[in-house]
Amino acid sequence: MSDYELDLDDANGLAKVITTIRSSGQISRPKVVRQTGFSRTLATKHIDIALSSGLLYEGELGVSTGGRAPRLLEFNPSAGTLLVAELGASGLSVAISDLAGNLSQVKSFNTEISLGPELVLAEVERAFDTIIAEFKIKNIWGIGIGLPGPVEFAAGIPMSPPIMPGWDRYPVRARFADKYDAPVWVDNDVNLMALGEHATFPGKKSNELIFIKIGSGIGAGILTHGRLHRGAQGCAGDIGHIAISEKTDVICRCGNVGCLESVAGGLALARDALDAITDGKSKFLTLRKKTNKTILAQDVIEGAKSGDKWCVDAINNVGNQVGRILAMLVNFHNPSLIVIGGGVSAAGDQLLASIRETVFRRSLPLATRDLEIRLGSIDDSVGLKGAAEMVISELFEPEFLKQWINSGHPTRLHSHQK
Amino acid sequence: MSDYELDLDDANGLAKVITTIRSSGQISRPKVVRQTGFSRTLATKHIDIALSSGLLYEGELGVSTGGRAPRLLEFNPSAGTLLVAELGASGLSVAISDLAGNLSQVKSFNTEISLGPELVLAEVERAFDTIIAEFKIKNIWGIGIGLPGPVEFAAGIPMSPPIMPGWDRYPVRARFADKYDAPVWVDNDVNLMALGEHATFPGKKSNELIFIKIGSGIGAGILTHGRLHRGAQGCAGDIGHIAISEKTDVICRCGNVGCLESVAGGLALARDALDAITDGKSKFLTLRKKTNKTILAQDVIEGAKSGDKWCVDAINNVGNQVGRILAMLVNFHNPSLIVIGGGVSAAGDQLLASIRETVFRRSLPLATRDLEIRLGSIDDSVGLKGAAEMVISELFEPEFLKQWINSGHPTRLHSHQK
Repeated sequence: MSDYELDLDDANGLAKVITTIRSSGQISRPKVVRQTGFSRTLATKHIDIALSSGLLYEGELGVSTGGRAPRLLEFNPSAGTLLVAELGASGLSVAISDLAGNLSQVKSFNTEISLGPELVLAEVERAFDTIIAEFKIKNIWGIGIGLPGPVEFAAGIPMSPPIMPGWDRYPVRARFADKYDAPVWVDNDVNLMALGEHATFPGKKSNELIFIKIGSGIGAGILTHGRLHRGAQGCAGDIGHIAISEKTDVICRCGNVGCLESVAGGLALARDALDAITDGKSKFLTLRKKTNKTILAQDVIEGAKSGDKWCVDAINNVGNQVGRILAMLVNFHNPSLIVIGGGVSAAGDQLLASIRETVFRRSLPLATRDLEIRLGSIDDSVGLKGAAEMVISELFEPEFLKQWINSGHPTRLHSHQK
Repeated sequence: MSDYELDLDDANGLAKVITTIRSSGQISRPKVVRQTGFSRTLATKHIDIALSSGLLYEGELGVSTGGRAPRLLEFNPSAGTLLVAELGASGLSVAISDLAGNLSQVKSFNTEISLGPELVLAEVERAFDTIIAEFKIKNIWGIGIGLPGPVEFAAGIPMSPPIMPGWDRYPVRARFADKYDAPVWVDNDVNLMALGEHATFPGKKSNELIFIKIGSGIGAGILTHGRLHRGAQGCAGDIGHIAISEKTDVICRCGNVGCLESVAGGLALARDALDAITDGKSKFLTLRKKTNKTILAQDVIEGAKSGDKWCVDAINNVGNQVGRILAMLVNFHNPSLIVIGGGVSAAGDQLLASIRETVFRRSLPLATRDLEIRLGSIDDSVGLKGAAEMVISELFEPEFLKQWINSGHPTRLHSHQK
């Protein structure tokens, strides 16, 4: 048990003290008093709680102002360890992170999300267990999981995910909380990639961000004032099933007709590529199919890079379709930065050019005055980085901090989430 | 000059104390200490500043706990008076408000925004001056202005407004700040109507709000966590010029083709109504034109209510087109409440039904699970109410509060805004 009985206002103050020290590197106690605006007594109380929770340490000697030189305070990123995992349609990655979001032990495995939660999550646990055993990790303060479909964030469960049979309402949070006795947060992979991009390129511009993932499907992650906009049900950004075309007879995997991802996602690219081969429209793809037997979106991207006309047109079409939706979202949301990620973004500058052209032609001049559109980080672990950012920001939310400090340790906290 | 020299942290604390007291009705000093988490010394300092600024008064006697009964603290909504104005395409309204957002002296006048800023703003000033003289108002603490076009909020100037010739970059803020020696905030009318709807129906549901105004044109105001989302350039919500149709040959007043408002706004309704009369498709409108000489959107709405088939179809078409865009925005933004306002919303339940039908058919099930779509307040002064809400929330922003308290009075503050 803890020595403390914080109320929410105490926790607000404690969170402010910790945030001040986290963003300062090293800082003296009088400076904490000045920067928080708290009384010396109040600041000292919060600092003492943070010290005894292991969140701070007293490091180097500061400048003496007469008497004994004071020790400077510093945030301790090694106080706790985070486990993070990102699940995709056909693979998963895991890593550990410190409390500053520094990843290590990044490992990737092939799997199929369609095998269902029991098998796939057992693989995640096996990967976590291997790292825990190897590095004798004892202080697991939180777990962050990214899933390739809609998640009810507050509950930590997937909701009617279209490509994940058997996952609907599966208690992902409860499973990991029970096994590791730690608080667990679950979100969709696109939101976490948006957080990861924001952490990779911090600053004012990336605080108003729309991140677009063009993979097998298409989704968006939205940041407002530097924080994720999840919306009322936590499914904001689910743009893959926006109806973009009335003419098409293509049925989307969601069952509707004319959805954005059914005409511009990676699966659509591969499907159209097979038609192009049948119709004899692409030499590059015909050769590739002979060699590899199958055709993937990746082949169309390589064809476009080698100058195959059908492939070039196909990538431009993806850019135009995504650009049309983005132009609407630019008028509606007025972001300052759009980042394009996901597997199809490997098409690079050609894709970027066609997206830019459509967005700037179709959006209002005022909304695009300072708008930057660029490709995402080439770092594969941007989603894992985002998962760590998610856990860190949730750990230091005052409501959570209160329960954690009062109960003595974040590992004890998972029960309140269920 | 003021006796105070607050830094931003002091102002944060002061804002917290004022907010605590504003939302409490009457409150004792020990309760302020408890609810803010501040030390007694710090809370007393902030309370003293607020008292000497006239923002609080000490009212009724509280319950004695032994000694002398303490006086309870109360927010003083009459400390300052706000002037608010809302300009439309063909009319303007003005009012005064107290610091709790209670409007009085609401007055409306006919005018034409196309007469340009000098003439129209002179009318606003004349209306303000009449109220000021009649009620001997001396304590003008802030002015809020709504304009029917894009506004750069930080600068308080209209930006390339499509229906406002002569208004582009006109210094609206500076003009009113100079004349009334008060801080001035300017925003577009749709954002202010969204704030007004939020103030009329406060609560969790209206914190994630998309307000749609269907007037001559079409625009949206977006609330996230109960605050306006203005976007990077302050032009978020400008959905009237989203390209909705590729087939149409209708040229929008913005110069592009197929914009939402060119097929579904009030001007579009009136234009199509004239064609219907020429083609002999509506008995109701033909009769109406004979009587009134002109045809307005209002006539189509009345025709629909009287059962004229062409008018019914026209209103349904507006609902379907607006519903198509809203369905996209629901997938993207995941709001919990959509409110339909503006002149065309007088079409009532019929319009609402066709919007609902389209939104619920085309949005993802998760995003519409708890989504409420309803008609806006029938109160004409909802935009004025929003203008007052805007000024009140800006007055109590810590950055602003700091300068105001340090300089002694909000009237002295307009110079920093220019």
